[in-house]
Amino acid sequence: MLDSVNLPKDIKKLNISQLNRLALELRAFLLENVSKTGGHLASNLGVVELTLALHYCLNTPEDKIVWDVGHQAYIHKIITGRKDEFSSLRQLDGLSGFPKPNESEYDSFTAGHSSTSISIALGLACARDLAGGNEKIVAVIGDGSMTGGVAFEALNNAGRYNRNLIVILNDNQMAISNNVGAISRHLGELRTESRYIEAKDGVKKILERIPGSEPFVDSVKRTKKRIKYMFVPGVVFEELGFRYIGPVDGHNIEELIGTINRAKNLDGPVLIHVRTIKGKGYKYAEKNPEDYHGVNPFDLKTGKAAKKSALPSYSSVFGKTLERLAEKDKKIVAVSAAMCKGTGLAGFAEKYPDRFFDVGIAEQHAVSFSAAFAKEGYKPVFAVYSTFLQRGYDEIMQDVCLQNLHVVFGVDRAGIVGSDGETHQGIYDLSYLSHMPNMTVMVPKNGAELEKMVEFALNDMDSPTAIRYPRGEITEKFAENTADIEYGRSEILKDGEKIAIINCGTVLNETTAICEGLEKEGYRPLLANLRFVKPVDTGLLKEISEKCDYIFTVEDNVLTGGAGSEVLNALNDLGLMKKVIFHAFGFPDVFVEHGKRDELFSRYGLDGDTICNEIKKRVENNV
Amino acid sequence: MLDSVNLPKDIKKLNISQLNRLALELRAFLLENVSKTGGHLASNLGVVELTLALHYCLNTPEDKIVWDVGHQAYIHKIITGRKDEFSSLRQLDGLSGFPKPNESEYDSFTAGHSSTSISIALGLACARDLAGGNEKIVAVIGDGSMTGGVAFEALNNAGRYNRNLIVILNDNQMAISNNVGAISRHLGELRTESRYIEAKDGVKKILERIPGSEPFVDSVKRTKKRIKYMFVPGVVFEELGFRYIGPVDGHNIEELIGTINRAKNLDGPVLIHVRTIKGKGYKYAEKNPEDYHGVNPFDLKTGKAAKKSALPSYSSVFGKTLERLAEKDKKIVAVSAAMCKGTGLAGFAEKYPDRFFDVGIAEQHAVSFSAAFAKEGYKPVFAVYSTFLQRGYDEIMQDVCLQNLHVVFGVDRAGIVGSDGETHQGIYDLSYLSHMPNMTVMVPKNGAELEKMVEFALNDMDSPTAIRYPRGEITEKFAENTADIEYGRSEILKDGEKIAIINCGTVLNETTAICEGLEKEGYRPLLANLRFVKPVDTGLLKEISEKCDYIFTVEDNVLTGGAGSEVLNALNDLGLMKKVIFHAFGFPDVFVEHGKRDELFSRYGLDGDTICNEIKKRVENNV
Repeated sequence: MLDSVNLPKDIKKLNISQLNRLALELRAFLLENVSKTGGHLASNLGVVELTLALHYCLNTPEDKIVWDVGHQAYIHKIITGRKDEFSSLRQLDGLSGFPKPNESEYDSFTAGHSSTSISIALGLACARDLAGGNEKIVAVIGDGSMTGGVAFEALNNAGRYNRNLIVILNDNQMAISNNVGAISRHLGELRTESRYIEAKDGVKKILERIPGSEPFVDSVKRTKKRIKYMFVPGVVFEELGFRYIGPVDGHNIEELIGTINRAKNLDGPVLIHVRTIKGKGYKYAEKNPEDYHGVNPFDLKTGKAAKKSALPSYSSVFGKTLERLAEKDKKIVAVSAAMCKGTGLAGFAEKYPDRFFDVGIAEQHAVSFSAAFAKEGYKPVFAVYSTFLQRGYDEIMQDVCLQNLHVVFGVDRAGIVGSDGETHQGIYDLSYLSHMPNMTVMVPKNGAELEKMVEFALNDMDSPTAIRYPRGEITEKFAENTADIEYGRSEILKDGEKIAIINCGTVLNETTAICEGLEKEGYRPLLANLRFVKPVDTGLLKEISEKCDYIFTVEDNVLTGGAGSEVLNALNDLGLMKKVIFHAFGFPDVFVEHGKRDELFSRYGLDGDTICNEIKKRVENNV
Repeated sequence: MLDSVNLPKDIKKLNISQLNRLALELRAFLLENVSKTGGHLASNLGVVELTLALHYCLNTPEDKIVWDVGHQAYIHKIITGRKDEFSSLRQLDGLSGFPKPNESEYDSFTAGHSSTSISIALGLACARDLAGGNEKIVAVIGDGSMTGGVAFEALNNAGRYNRNLIVILNDNQMAISNNVGAISRHLGELRTESRYIEAKDGVKKILERIPGSEPFVDSVKRTKKRIKYMFVPGVVFEELGFRYIGPVDGHNIEELIGTINRAKNLDGPVLIHVRTIKGKGYKYAEKNPEDYHGVNPFDLKTGKAAKKSALPSYSSVFGKTLERLAEKDKKIVAVSAAMCKGTGLAGFAEKYPDRFFDVGIAEQHAVSFSAAFAKEGYKPVFAVYSTFLQRGYDEIMQDVCLQNLHVVFGVDRAGIVGSDGETHQGIYDLSYLSHMPNMTVMVPKNGAELEKMVEFALNDMDSPTAIRYPRGEITEKFAENTADIEYGRSEILKDGEKIAIINCGTVLNETTAICEGLEKEGYRPLLANLRFVKPVDTGLLKEISEKCDYIFTVEDNVLTGGAGSEVLNALNDLGLMKKVIFHAFGFPDVFVEHGKRDELFSRYGLDGDTICNEIKKRVENNV
């Protein structure tokens, strides 16, 4: 069946049993491919029927589907002309793992961060209405994404503007971690309800037939709207101005098609509550959907990862250090925004459940909530991916830094994250954190230094502190005897002359290679390790500018506002720019696509060899 | 009565009629003072009784009040030991217009931006419970602030954690602009309800008395919870896990005290819905609460501003230009986040109601919503205060810049905002916008240039564009024949030699004074105008470094990541740092307190005289 399907028009010809067959084949195709490429698996297994039903009912790409967060759009990609390229998923120059309008006209909007789809869909709907169009706009959003504040901002506005707009709530009872909060409970109650009943009139008739109930009926008339709450689930959404339909079985194509077609013909905003099973159709994923949310290549038969690294990850070092410290220090509390496992906090959560708070996808709240703990003398640690912390920018500034509160930010997935690509690269955190007054920003060079920095941040600091470290295993040499951390002090790893390389964070393999390359040419480069991007160690800069004519920084942040920029400003303030030549190596002012870390480092000229050659050229030409 | 009240303990001795008398006196005191100092008036007039009732019922400062947004805490300040200093409100080194813990132990947390109070209160409650305390925690939040997403994130979590916590919803039917959205409508419906009735059992009894209604009663039992929605308002809050009490008359002290005392003794999160009248007790403010939200000094009798400037404001130039362009260009739409008047959009909203969207306090949504318009070929303009745009940081990056969409940001209240102080200074926008790929950032030197830049941004650009301009009237010379804008091109305002001053934005009075000062000393400084902070005009830098040995930038942003840093990086990339001495003047890495713009410029060494002297010293000493 799949062989005959390339575009949505091919789907429209199929009958229900053929669609069911297609769903099976799509699952097999998906598993076959993702087990090789890695990627988001469980969420895509869950939306096979939903995706088919949407394209069956809608006239895409004129009608628009806005995929919230976007990692569940694989099936959509396969049936919108990208089946043959699908094996290139998430590989360098291959298909993106997220919707991308310049990849296909069927991708109506880019996504990557959660909870914005309703805002986008409402904007598209208002634009459509201004232009006098009548295309359908559908947002597909998971129950986990519903906890993000911007989703609520959008629901609130959608209820007001009353545009034709369908929101599909893909309820798989599971965000990346277990879903949390009152909305989740509300959905849980809805799930136990029987089917939507058009009961309003029916109830009134029953009451009217009951003698003596007239005053009651009057009261019912007065508060007419209320009676439906007795029988109609989804009251929160109804109150927000949506017509609620559901819950619908998200694996029953016939029911889905009927519901979507019905919703298409309703006026105003409609919310369809669809129940799906994350990981549907692959037993290992159904059983452990969290483990199969994002996967590396794995063996289809056993469900086991193809290769398991013996090296620990930065996240696990972070989490374990926190666990160790929290045993003695009862003031330590940990906060997660739906990324408990990903940030290495699972052990902490298990050992100290009363000091662990997973607030769901709600980074703004996580930051302010942490700030309050700090105000009360606790030591809150918010472990969060660099790219998602962007959501909390204002709260870090206003609620943490302004009062100089001791919140520790474990900025995970900093630098290049690899195959998730441009929506997820953690290459802006140094830029958005460094200009916040009172903030201290540390960058460990390896796992041992991360451990020391976590200790330092919790034991020795008393103000906002961020430590940023990358995704994945620790390939940097794990120096056993890493020097203790001193506030604002860098270190010299290897003395030298003429040329100074300043290592900024986990680019130690690169800076080591650069030094080796230069040494081969007879240079004796000095290798320093920055440790603190903020404050920059002016003592170090003075010292190395005595010994060296050239200073180079290497970092995996964008150059604008990054570590190199901080160093340059410090050098200039110290009046050293007449004396030394400075150049910063880092990411340019573009969005960096998906690909393996090393591939992207090479592409952007940040591998050891390229930088080494660039430095040699600069030194030879004295520029 | 007010004479005998200095601290909350003094209030606890009073009876209801004395408290009512005190409320009257507090209003008079407030009006007397704020009419002289300026400040937030209408919202404070609205919470006199509520503030008294809170301090009457609570044991502050052990019990904690978290004021959302904070500008309604004047009465709180007056009755917590700051009555005598109250005339210094919002003046340099005087009382802050917002809660500030280092001003008083009664201020439990800083505020300034909206919608975070429930997150803070929940954090305080969780910290209290870990510590085994039993103090009361109360968040006071307006209906306008309720539309901000982080408030929803916090409600969702509060409903889950089930901590003892009181949220007071101060419903004055009015955010800064008219309140919008479905939540607002929901509150509107609640306001028309009769008092909260403990009706659950009553209803059941009525039904049981009706013959033939047994099956109905069974169904009621099954969906037991639902029946209360027929009679109990606040269903959205109840569904979110809160006990809803209300609506309560916010000007009836006795009722308030009774309600708060009752709520204190309930377990779990409670939401008290209090109806207040913004501007209560001052007829002009009651009539036009928006005009009296934030006021300059005014005449108490007439309600008129003490002095009315003849000069236009930057906001009005922005708004009028937009109106003019929108007449011909039907693709222009304008978006506001509850700041329609403040950003000069009132005229636009009136002339083009179908192209104007006030989304309420919801900056994240505003950004993504605008992005969708741009995707459809419209030209959305989001006019927003610099400090509030911080909330949309992630959406600017992900939804606007990543797809290179043509959204125009009118970044109002950039630079020093004056008496609102540290929570509102717009001195970070250059830093947080400049490192976003695809973003263009313009800084006009005066009103005429702002006009040209708005035209340029809408007619000539096709990608994300920010224009930042300050609060208040235009005191910079309004050059009639301002040169047309060319992408990425700066201009030389006055040729010269040896010393180059680069004007970055609306610091033209300062840079002009600097030049005049230097000219008096016999120098012939070159005065350039940056126009584009991003991209920096490398041509200009090459040109002036031919003519000058010293280059100085002047800006009203923080130095880190600001215009000067961009210029320094460009100079360095051009290899010009061996040739020229560069220094940037701007705000240091601290939070800048409240005070008049010129006072703060002087305090931070950014007035023309100080910079002029600093430059002379540097040139004399060649550093």
